[in-house]
Amino acid sequence: MTEARQDQDPYATAERLLGFPLPLALGPGEPDVGRDFMQLGVERTFGDVWSRPGLDLHSRCLISVTIAAVLGAPQPLGGQLKIALNNGVTKEEIVELFIHLQAYAGATRAVEGYHLAKAIFAERAA
Amino acid sequence: MTEARQDQDPYATAERLLGFPLPLALGPGEPDVGRDFMQLGVERTFGDVWSRPGLDLHSRCLISVTIAAVLGAPQPLGGQLKIALNNGVTKEEIVELFIHLQAYAGATRAVEGYHLAKAIFAERAA
Amino acid sequence: MTEARQDQDPYATAERLLGFPLPLALGPGEPDVGRDFMQLGVERTFGDVWSRPGLDLHSRCLISVTIAAVLGAPQPLGGQLKIALNNGVTKEEIVELFIHLQAYAGATRAVEGYHLAKAIFAERAA
Amino acid sequence: MTEARQDQDPYATAERLLGFPLPLALGPGEPDVGRDFMQLGVERTFGDVWSRPGLDLHSRCLISVTIAAVLGAPQPLGGQLKIALNNGVTKEEIVELFIHLQAYAGATRAVEGYHLAKAIFAERAA
Amino acid sequence: MTEARQDQDPYATAERLLGFPLPLALGPGEPDVGRDFMQLGVERTFGDVWSRPGLDLHSRCLISVTIAAVLGAPQPLGGQLKIALNNGVTKEEIVELFIHLQAYAGATRAVEGYHLAKAIFAERAA
Amino acid sequence: MTEARQDQDPYATAERLLGFPLPLALGPGEPDVGRDFMQLGVERTFGDVWSRPGLDLHSRCLISVTIAAVLGAPQPLGGQLKIALNNGVTKEEIVELFIHLQAYAGATRAVEGYHLAKAIFAERAA
Repeated sequence: MTEARQDQDPYATAERLLGFPLPLALGPGEPDVGRDFMQLGVERTFGDVWSRPGLDLHSRCLISVTIAAVLGAPQPLGGQLKIALNNGVTKEEIVELFIHLQAYAGATRAVEGYHLAKAIFAERAA
Repeated sequence: MTEARQDQDPYATAERLLGFPLPLALGPGEPDVGRDFMQLGVERTFGDVWSRPGLDLHSRCLISVTIAAVLGAPQPLGGQLKIALNNGVTKEEIVELFIHLQAYAGATRAVEGYHLAKAIFAERAA
Repeated sequence: MTEARQDQDPYATAERLLGFPLPLALGPGEPDVGRDFMQLGVERTFGDVWSRPGLDLHSRCLISVTIAAVLGAPQPLGGQLKIALNNGVTKEEIVELFIHLQAYAGATRAVEGYHLAKAIFAERAA
Repeated sequence: MTEARQDQDPYATAERLLGFPLPLALGPGEPDVGRDFMQLGVERTFGDVWSRPGLDLHSRCLISVTIAAVLGAPQPLGGQLKIALNNGVTKEEIVELFIHLQAYAGATRAVEGYHLAKAIFAERAA
Repeated sequence: MTEARQDQDPYATAERLLGFPLPLALGPGEPDVGRDFMQLGVERTFGDVWSRPGLDLHSRCLISVTIAAVLGAPQPLGGQLKIALNNGVTKEEIVELFIHLQAYAGATRAVEGYHLAKAIFAERAA
Repeated sequence: MTEARQDQDPYATAERLLGFPLPLALGPGEPDVGRDFMQLGVERTFGDVWSRPGLDLHSRCLISVTIAAVLGAPQPLGGQLKIALNNGVTKEEIVELFIHLQAYAGATRAVEGYHLAKAIFAERAA
């Protein structure tokens, strides 16, 4: 590849971006192969893309929030909003993202996602 | 434009359709530019489209519910169902909408959305 | 059921709404069970919902166009636009639907779908 | 049709697959035509497709889980996961489905859906 | 509002971003109210969001491409890719966006969208 | 991991499943980092999931077709249909998949996808 190959420690990258270490234990009743889901998940996201130098971290944060917001996926959106706010994206930029999203993806997704953003703003203000 | 330009008081239109005034205050931790999100949101929906004479209110209600139901967006869907029931769409017509939606958008979205409609029927029957 | 049960002749309903009879022959290489797909398809749409009296035809046309437009499904959207225009929905109402859709589902889907509507307007004007 | 026509007792099929009988009563405030929604819903899913012999039950379970997971529809997804686990799909196969889904539908939907699967594994392990 | 109000000349902004003026004439058979769809469309996108100072142009381009790519909307995606390449986003950054999209939105949307990006790269290389 | 780690030669797996080798050359105007998109794409799909033993090939084919059909992604859907037909899924099973999809994802996506399946049946019958 022309860019840096896969991140050597995706779990460290995840912890750095999220602000806490990813829980690694299997849940109750979860089969052993659940570890593969977790490992591939971490490698394919935190390992594969976040450390690639060809696109800056700020842009990656905005893209990740946008994907979750367009899909209307609340739990992932919450996670991406936290990563963004932890890593240099301002609250004002988050609001602007949702204003932009409203124009192109519509009020349904924008209002739904912004409602979650407001909850995270409140959480972080407490 | 050939049609009436933008609604002069989208907040009044919102209140009329929803049955209550929209909350205008910023949430805790929400930056000032959050007022822009709210204002553009209200203008682009309640201001831009609901008062346009070229399509009747009953049809607009049905279209708005359909959009939220196809997207599977629970909070917006709840809001649109309430607007519809407040503004002349009967409960029977709502049920028919979900029967029609099931054929074209499938049981997954139809059942998910109808579950929410039933909760709103129950709330309004109490 | 409290409403009229399934349409007795969905193929006749389809022909009435579309303006032409549905092609019934299997395509080259299509297995015999393809007839089941066609038959269930016609029954579940034209049979199940269009003749139900609880929601008027005009509303059903608008709902069907909206579903296809929100999903961004070009071929079905073209079909629903033709059904709508054949059955009392005016071109002006179609334009209004896309203006409404833009607010709630965003410019991406609205512009994509309206482009198709314009092609159908042109086709019908020729 | 070349295949067995519609299931003669879709409510029995539903009960067999779900492990419990479907609730049939109308909810508070739900109009009578809500029975049509329920009846058509049961017929079009449990009646129309699950008993068709041309595709085995195991495959149908996986397809149904996949549809709900790609759409990101939590309540339907929970229902389909339970049907799958009740009817011969192993927990390991469910995990593999989400690993496969992550590659093709992305981490957003895969993580969101797998979170629900873990909750169901836990519920069934209690 | 705390930010600059709506762009004073959205048609000029559109032309600047696209590299060509938007066609304003109605299509054959298109009703007069089609001008409203065009005008509201231009105002709500080029007017409302692109000139807002709270989020830089580079980020707005990436967000717009992401929205269209997640939705799988080919014509809008082509337009946003051209706007991005016209306005400082490099081809390398576009490729990185699709690598990032693949992780979070999956190979289905990433491959579909990247295929279009390659066509635009080829067009611009000719 | 409890399962076989990543496929050692994803390009060989791709060729085996598709029936032809993947084109590896960059397109005109495509930057060098386009090789990373291709390589990660092949590794994350053909490498990561198809060879994992925990879910049989037949099921994986059906899941892949379902994902592309629910998303309404024509080019990927065509590719997955060909992989399925090349690898033991019968045409009859494909038809059954679309009948099942119609119930749960609706006629819009089912008809759109089945139209593509018919084109592939015709192509393979010629």
